[in-house]
Amino acid sequence: MEAITIKDIARALNISTSTVSRALRNSYEINPETKKLVMEYAEKMNYRPNPIALSLKDSKSKSIGVIIPEIANHFFSQLINGIESIAYNLGYHVVIFQSHDSYEREVANTNYLVSRKVDGLLVSLASLTTNLFHFQDLMERGLPIVFLDRVPKEIETHKVVADNFDGSYQATSHLIQTGKRRIAHLTSPIYLSITTERLAGYRKALEDNGIPFDESYVRYCIYGGKVVAENEEAIGELLALPEPPDAIFTASDRLTTGCLAVLQKRRIKIPEEIAIVGFTNISVAELLNPPLTAVVQPALEMGQQAVELLIRLIEHPQKKGDYEIRFLQTSLITRESSVGKQALKT
Amino acid sequence: MEAITIKDIARALNISTSTVSRALRNSYEINPETKKLVMEYAEKMNYRPNPIALSLKDSKSKSIGVIIPEIANHFFSQLINGIESIAYNLGYHVVIFQSHDSYEREVANTNYLVSRKVDGLLVSLASLTTNLFHFQDLMERGLPIVFLDRVPKEIETHKVVADNFDGSYQATSHLIQTGKRRIAHLTSPIYLSITTERLAGYRKALEDNGIPFDESYVRYCIYGGKVVAENEEAIGELLALPEPPDAIFTASDRLTTGCLAVLQKRRIKIPEEIAIVGFTNISVAELLNPPLTAVVQPALEMGQQAVELLIRLIEHPQKKGDYEIRFLQTSLITRESSVGKQALKT
Repeated sequence: MEAITIKDIARALNISTSTVSRALRNSYEINPETKKLVMEYAEKMNYRPNPIALSLKDSKSKSIGVIIPEIANHFFSQLINGIESIAYNLGYHVVIFQSHDSYEREVANTNYLVSRKVDGLLVSLASLTTNLFHFQDLMERGLPIVFLDRVPKEIETHKVVADNFDGSYQATSHLIQTGKRRIAHLTSPIYLSITTERLAGYRKALEDNGIPFDESYVRYCIYGGKVVAENEEAIGELLALPEPPDAIFTASDRLTTGCLAVLQKRRIKIPEEIAIVGFTNISVAELLNPPLTAVVQPALEMGQQAVELLIRLIEHPQKKGDYEIRFLQTSLITRESSVGKQALKT
Repeated sequence: MEAITIKDIARALNISTSTVSRALRNSYEINPETKKLVMEYAEKMNYRPNPIALSLKDSKSKSIGVIIPEIANHFFSQLINGIESIAYNLGYHVVIFQSHDSYEREVANTNYLVSRKVDGLLVSLASLTTNLFHFQDLMERGLPIVFLDRVPKEIETHKVVADNFDGSYQATSHLIQTGKRRIAHLTSPIYLSITTERLAGYRKALEDNGIPFDESYVRYCIYGGKVVAENEEAIGELLALPEPPDAIFTASDRLTTGCLAVLQKRRIKIPEEIAIVGFTNISVAELLNPPLTAVVQPALEMGQQAVELLIRLIEHPQKKGDYEIRFLQTSLITRESSVGKQALKT
C-alpha cells in the first residue's frame, strides 16, 4: 500500500494542504475543530510524516516577540539584554514591543506579533491588564508563551520571577536592624503579582520583628511612580500621618528615584529623618545623593532563563506540561540612604 | 539604455504609480481597461519588474522597524517613545531592535526586518558601522529609511539630528565663563557623525575665546563609555598630563555618568578641582552627587519628527527626493557639577 500524503488528507477532507500541514504541526493558526478532524483522519489512515518534507515546510520564523511595559527602565532593559544574549546565539531574532502599561497596547502588540508569525512570546504584564484572554487564546492555539517578572496566576506555563517575597523581607529586616520602626511601603497597583509578593515579604518581616502591620503606611501608586505628582501625593500623605514614617521601602525603580526626589525637595535628611531602601536596577544608584540602598534583581539572568525555557517550548512542543516557576534571588546592596555615612559598612 | 521603471510608465500614461504597480500585479482593484493599457505599454517598453523591490513594495504591513544602538539609555528610550507616540496614532506598529553598536547585528536586524516586510526603517547607526551597503541597497530597492541622531553623510534621505555643534559650543562656552581654561573633551569614536559635530562645537568655542585647541585634551572612547575600564583609562591619561584639565566636557550619557563615577572614586572635588558638563538625557541628573550640568537633547521630538518624515515617505513615495536634514535645539541645564553650590543660579 502506498503511503498516504498531506495531499491525500487535504483532498479527502476538502481543505487546503497548507491547512492540513499546519493542523498536523498543531499550529495556533488552525482552529481546534479542524485540527481534531485532520489529526483523527491522519491517525485512521496511518499517516506518517515525511521528516524531510516536514523540515522543508516548517515555516518557523526564528523570531521571538517580547512585550514589556517600558524600556526606559534599567530592570527591563537588562532583562532584554539577557534575552538577546541567548536568543542571538541560538539564531533567534528578538522583536521588542512596549505596552506602556496599557491593556489595549498589549493586546495590539500581541495581535501584531502573531500576525507576523513569531515562534513564541515572552511577556511581562502591563500594570493595567486584568483580562488575559489574548494570551490564553493563543496558548490554546499552540503558541508558546513564557511570562517573566509580572506573571499571571491564571495561566499555566513557564514563569521566571525574582524572589520578591525574600527581597522585600530582607530590605524591611535591614531597616528594622538600623533602628527604624515606622516603615512605610510605596508600591505599584495591588493586582500585579510583584505587588502582592513584595507586600507579603514586607509584612512578614515586620511581624517577625514584633511590629504590627499597619495598612495606613502602605501606598499604592496606580502608575507605578511614572507620574511625578503620584509620588508627591503618596509621600505627602505619609508625612501627614500622626506618626510619620522613619523609613520608606519602595517597590520599583520609578518609585525609588521618585521618592528620593520628593524627600530631597522637602529637605528631609536621608537616612537620619527618613531612610530609603528600594527595588531598583538603576545603574547610577551609587552616584545618587545619597547613594541608594537597593534591592537588585538578577534581570539579566531572568531574561536568559526565560528565553531558554521559551526556546525549549518552541523546539520541543511535545514536552509541554511540565511547567516550571523559577524564583531567582535578589541582592541587597547597602549604601548611605539607609545606614548613613558613618555607619556605612564597606 | 536605462531600464524603465513604474514611475516612467505612470508618467507616460498619466496615472499614479500605485495604479501601475497594482495593474502589473493584476490586482482586482484595477479595472480591466487600465490593466490592459499598463501591461501593453510595459510590454512595449520592455519593462522588467525588480522582484525584490516588488516584494518590498507589496502588501503594506503597517509597521516600522527601528534599529538603535541600545535601549538602556535614556536618550534612545525617549527617542523610541517619541516614535511610538506618533506611529501608534497613525496606525503603525513599531518594531524595536538593538544593534548593541555592532555592525554584524545591525546588518542581521536589517535583513530580518526586511524579510518581515516592514514598511520603512528608522536607524541610528551602530558605532562600529562603517560600511553602509546594507542600507544603500535597500533604499535603491525602494525601502524608505530615515536616519536620526547618528546619521551617515553618504546616504541621501531625511535625517533628524540634535544641533550637536551648538550644544557643544554652549557647554564649552559655559565652562569658560565659569573660569575654566583647560577643558578636556571625552567623546565617542571619531567616525560617528555626532562625534565630529560635537568636537567641532567644542573647538570653535575654545577658539572664539582665545583658547588654542589642544588635541591632547581630547579622548575618544571606542565603546562610548560602556566599558568602565575605558572611562578610567581615558580620565587617567588626562589627569597624568603635565597640565591636567580643570573641566571635562563629556559627549554621551555613558561617558558623563562614567566620568562622574571615576572622579568620585578618586575623591576629586567637583567642580572646584574638575567641573563636569555632559551630553545626557538621564532622568536622575538632578539627584546625582553633585547634580549634573547637562546638555539635554530633545529626544522625544527627534523621534516624533523622524517618524513623521518616514511615514510621509511610506505613504507618498512619489515625493521622494526633497530630503530634509532637521537640526533640533539642545538645552543646557546648569547645575552644581559646573557652578558649585554657592554660585548656583536657580
